[in-house]
Formats: sequence, structure tokens, C-alpha cells
Amino acid sequence: MNVMQSRSEDEVAVRDVVESWMAAVRSRDYEGILRNHSSGIVMFDVPPPFQVKGIDAYKKTWDLFFSCAKDPVHFDPTEMHITAGKDVAFVVATMHCDGDGGPGGLDFRLTVGLRKIDGQWTITHEHHSIPALD
Amino acid sequence: MNVMQSRSEDEVAVRDVVESWMAAVRSRDYEGILRNHSSGIVMFDVPPPFQVKGIDAYKKTWDLFFSCAKDPVHFDPTEMHITAGKDVAFVVATMHCDGDGGPGGLDFRLTVGLRKIDGQWTITHEHHSIPALD
Repeated sequence: MNVMQSRSEDEVAVRDVVESWMAAVRSRDYEGILRNHSSGIVMFDVPPPFQVKGIDAYKKTWDLFFSCAKDPVHFDPTEMHITAGKDVAFVVATMHCDGDGGPGGLDFRLTVGLRKIDGQWTITHEHHSIPALD
Repeated sequence: MNVMQSRSEDEVAVRDVVESWMAAVRSRDYEGILRNHSSGIVMFDVPPPFQVKGIDAYKKTWDLFFSCAKDPVHFDPTEMHITAGKDVAFVVATMHCDGDGGPGGLDFRLTVGLRKIDGQWTITHEHHSIPALD
């Protein structure tokens, strides 16, 4: 197999997983949100707590998000870069969502870590944040 | 080459790069901090700005950090997990540093993205954050 071709295919596959997850958020679709996530995911979210471990705790973070979000839900990349190897990848993005009330919404930073498990790219880590206040 | 052995060697090499970088921070050693960083690094830092691009802007973030840090400088992992493939890796850590004045210091979250370039693990992305205030 051609290595460059394989790498490119992995980049396409990683992009598809991450964009499908973002689309599921916009649709309030929990099943879609969780489809390619590891049971042992570690998440650093915008609001507290400091750290979220495991898929059940991860799922609950979306309850809070959706309780604040207006329809149509915004969860959109403004810039996205994918670094994909053959079995490990990470995605660096800047994002825009409705946030928790400000009329202009919320810009936040996002890093996603993935591992290819049994041939399927799987999200094992998410880090969402905004800069700290001065 | 045995794949598991190779993967383990890459994990060791990634850990060495990240721990050497942390040690250089504790030593206020700019050369050590920058040794294994990409010129095109994208950083999401704890304080503003929203995004830092390129090695010159990245270097300046340490001026601010060191202007606030007391000696001995703390920049210590409290938990660290490495996901390393053959040419892409990411590191997820919780960290403790002096922060900007609080007597108890600052706990923050850290994700580091790396790519193996010309045989050398190179940091291309850092995401440092604390949870947003309520």
C-alpha cells in the first residue's frame, strides 16, 4: 500500500468522524454524538468540572450544553487542522457555538485525540476551552 | 521490526520529549523549551490571546509565565497519559504550576500534539486551559 495514499485516506476518515460528531451535536442526536467515542474518553470541557472521565460522564456534559443552546444549535468549526498517522490522530480547531446566553455566542478552542481501534477511528480525548479571564 | 516493541519505543520517546520540555520550563531554559517544537506550532494558552501561531509568538507566552512565576518554578504533571502511533502522538495531562499569584497555585489541563519529523518527535500543538468560571 502506498503510504501517502494511506495517510490521506486516514485524514479523510478522521475528518469524517469529527464532522459527523459536530453534525450530531447540531441535531441534538446523542446516539450520533457517542457513535465513535471510546468508553474511556477523557474530556476537558469549557465549564467545570476540571476533568470528565468515561462515556457516561461525557454524555451528561451534553445535557448541560443542550439545556443552554437555542435552536438551531450552532457548533461550527471556524478553522480545523487534522494530523493523522496510521493509528493515532489529533484535530485542532477553533469553534463557534451559542454558548450560555451572550448574544454573539461563544468562540472556543477544541483539540480532539483519536485512535484507530479495530479499523475504526475512535475519539478517546476532547479538550474544549476558552481563555481565562484577566 | 516488532510492532508492539516499536510502539513502546515511540511512547518512551514521546514521554522523554514532553518531560524534557516540562523540565526546561522549571529551569527557565528557553532553548530547552523550544528544542523539539515546530516552527508552525499552534498553541491555545490559559491566558488570552485566543490562539497563538508560530514559534516566535509561542516563545513570548513564556515571558508572561516567567514574569509571574516564583522560584523554584513549578510546572508539574499530576497525571499524564500518552497515545503514540508510529508518527503521530498526543499527550493528555493534568498539571500544577504557580499560576499568577494564588497561594495554592494553579491546576490546569494540558493536551500536547506531536508528529515525528525526520525521525524526531516534534511538538506541533499545545492546549493549556482551566475551566471557565460559572
